Amino acid sequence: MYVILVYDVNVARVGKVLKIARKYLNWVQNSVLEGELTEATFRALKADMERIIDPEEDSLLFYVLGNQKYAKRELIGIKKGGEEWIF
Amino acid sequence: MYVILVYDVNVARVGKVLKIARKYLNWVQNSVLEGELTEATFRALKADMERIIDPEEDSLLFYVLGNQKYAKRELIGIKKGGEEWIF
Repeated sequence: MYVILVYDVNVARVGKVLKIARKYLNWVQNSVLEGELTEATFRALKADMERIIDPEEDSLLFYVLGNQKYAKRELIGIKKGGEEWIF
Repeated sequence: MYVILVYDVNVARVGKVLKIARKYLNWVQNSVLEGELTEATFRALKADMERIIDPEEDSLLFYVLGNQKYAKRELIGIKKGGEEWIF
């Protein structure tokens, strides 16, 4: 499965959330990461996140696609992703 | 087509970008909007944005899906979207 994560968390937890997210996904843009995951690693990612976020204040939004080919990316403006991000 | 927009723009232009984005899409979360667009309205959205962003500083990332059904949403934490967002 191909997973896009967009997070909106309190600044106190941004560093931790980003650190965990980067263990599983590639950074694309401020607050956005994506990558190919198995069902098991996706579950592990969610479990790791549930341990650190405040569910009354933070949001983690996942878009789960069967396959990367279902989503075409278009960018306007500056590309902020790293080298790991093949457009 | 179903379009997800994640923006990362200078605070000086956030208000304008959000105002234009909301003309076309539904707000989902901080910096994220999505919705069903025709090819023509998607072009109009991009043209409107190109007029106001600074391409050397701002990023607008669009994920374009053929159909909404290709993406499943999962949320951890608090739902920040409005009533217009049917989960």
